[in-house]
Amino acid sequence: MSYDTVALGAPRPGAVLRPVAITRRELRPYDVLIDVTYVGICHSDIYVAGDARASASSPAVPGHEISGFVAAIGDHVTTHQVGDRVGVGYVVDSCGVCDQCLKGAEQHCLLGPVPVHGGVDYYGQHMYGGYSHRIVVREPFVHRIPDSLDLAAAAPLLCAGIVPYSQLRFWRVGPGTAVAVVGLGGLGHMAVKLAAAMGARVAVVSRSLRKREDALRFGAHEFHVAGDPAALDRLRGRFDLVVNTASAVQSLDPGLRMLRRAGTMVLTGQSEGPLSVTPAVLTRSHGLLAGVSAAGTTETRELLAFCAEQRITPDIDVVSAAQINEVQARLVSGEARYRFVLDATTIGIERLA
Amino acid sequence: MSYDTVALGAPRPGAVLRPVAITRRELRPYDVLIDVTYVGICHSDIYVAGDARASASSPAVPGHEISGFVAAIGDHVTTHQVGDRVGVGYVVDSCGVCDQCLKGAEQHCLLGPVPVHGGVDYYGQHMYGGYSHRIVVREPFVHRIPDSLDLAAAAPLLCAGIVPYSQLRFWRVGPGTAVAVVGLGGLGHMAVKLAAAMGARVAVVSRSLRKREDALRFGAHEFHVAGDPAALDRLRGRFDLVVNTASAVQSLDPGLRMLRRAGTMVLTGQSEGPLSVTPAVLTRSHGLLAGVSAAGTTETRELLAFCAEQRITPDIDVVSAAQINEVQARLVSGEARYRFVLDATTIGIERLA
Repeated sequence: MSYDTVALGAPRPGAVLRPVAITRRELRPYDVLIDVTYVGICHSDIYVAGDARASASSPAVPGHEISGFVAAIGDHVTTHQVGDRVGVGYVVDSCGVCDQCLKGAEQHCLLGPVPVHGGVDYYGQHMYGGYSHRIVVREPFVHRIPDSLDLAAAAPLLCAGIVPYSQLRFWRVGPGTAVAVVGLGGLGHMAVKLAAAMGARVAVVSRSLRKREDALRFGAHEFHVAGDPAALDRLRGRFDLVVNTASAVQSLDPGLRMLRRAGTMVLTGQSEGPLSVTPAVLTRSHGLLAGVSAAGTTETRELLAFCAEQRITPDIDVVSAAQINEVQARLVSGEARYRFVLDATTIGIERLA
Repeated sequence: MSYDTVALGAPRPGAVLRPVAITRRELRPYDVLIDVTYVGICHSDIYVAGDARASASSPAVPGHEISGFVAAIGDHVTTHQVGDRVGVGYVVDSCGVCDQCLKGAEQHCLLGPVPVHGGVDYYGQHMYGGYSHRIVVREPFVHRIPDSLDLAAAAPLLCAGIVPYSQLRFWRVGPGTAVAVVGLGGLGHMAVKLAAAMGARVAVVSRSLRKREDALRFGAHEFHVAGDPAALDRLRGRFDLVVNTASAVQSLDPGLRMLRRAGTMVLTGQSEGPLSVTPAVLTRSHGLLAGVSAAGTTETRELLAFCAEQRITPDIDVVSAAQINEVQARLVSGEARYRFVLDATTIGIERLA
């Protein structure tokens, strides 16, 4: 028995989102059916709807920060029960046998991980994301959400939380390390909260003074305005890790100049447009440049436990399906404070604006 | 007693090189005076002569691949004797007490390493490079050259050898790893020889078929032409390490696409012009981008021992001072096969062309 469900999708590349009917697969033995309650609205969702490559799986349904309740389980599922509070992120399947999968770093699966939206699974089926009432996901990629975490606030942890968390851990951020977060959006504000909770000294570089109070409330120790040459001069050579979440930058050089020797700048934006980097600047910083978009199951579980223990959640604004296109436009213009979360139960009930 | 000596220098930024008189400092207790016999001609030497920043230390004297004989030693020098065959590279002083210096990674010295040319030392003295009859260098930065290595062929090891060696070691290249070398110049051909000697599978990507036989002779297992779309498609996603020595590339994306997941592309060029990188390409490769220009004393000693043991030397072409400006022009147009080495004893004896 497959599951008909309603979703928010772009019927063709670049079209605005509207309610569409899709079908979720019949439960295989290791599958979990989830009633979706909340979905974080990530900046990259806009590319999903706008991307020409997504046309193969029209309608394109975004959404990879999913929370909800287990509605049914396959015959062999042992780690989840009906009614459990669960979350799903960007990666929803992997080969399971390569050395990356065996350590729970499925985002690096050598066969190629299956994304929750915008691609096809190993059976050739188009993948539809979480802007939907229901979704079917393989057991290992369904994460239990700790009781102390609010379901709406937990949803963005699956991308805006796990991406910076994974990088902060990989680059061994903790007491004694200095982290700069460039851009204070959904992912940036989580990077600040997480890095501060790990004991690092955290600086925020933002476009204007507007978000200064928020940054300090999130745990930042310093706040700098990106356009101020004197501030950038003070930032030079000071950071072990620069988490660059700003999608509007043209040149990576200012961020690289902020690195201590052998420091790393991580790009979290998924822009398809080229940015510029000057080799001599990269070399003088003796730095590394890295890109990141997802993490694996091991770190996702760690993150959820860490956030429950440290009482860390994103600052969210719950919106209904009727607002989706307006909200995406506000996201592009930088108005989110700091993550819009879609109430998935409103899909198809209200008319879209 | 300070040492007057003759050198090849640019009297002002951008000027062609000509014989100039400079003075080397009086020997301090830990200094070594070296009679220079050979100096490798590195592509970056052209920037030294052309760089406006170098004007502070006019004349700008390039040269950081130096070999020669010890001519005198300071009172406290214990590791070198007059007559020893020695080499000097890019870094010639460091604080000596930070954690980077203590492990012999002086290129990352937290106080800032002193370069052999183009900067000032800790006493505020302008630094003149190795295109010269004599040079004075602190003992720890003077490296004994093993007897089995030819002095002329050993000189380029101090930059064209150590830069790829350091990166191949840092990224743990060995049996089972795949390395691509983009650009087959002075540094590229050493990267091929070293990576092959370490047991890696090595592919060369070059502008034309011209250097194919050479590449295979150096130990490469594959040869590809950079402009060929079909070849680049075959290279996609295959390499743990891409050593990108090509200074003429505009976009870093083709190199990044060659990376295996979690692979690294290292830029060895010191271009001051910006290149382009697409964040989504970097992310999809789950790769790292690194820049490198120098290494420390620990790895330099390792490299010299490794090259002596494995009988690895660069393919060189010894030239006289009279040819220097013509040779630099040939270097820019990619005609080196594969490193020009200046016979430093000819400086000032012949008239420059």
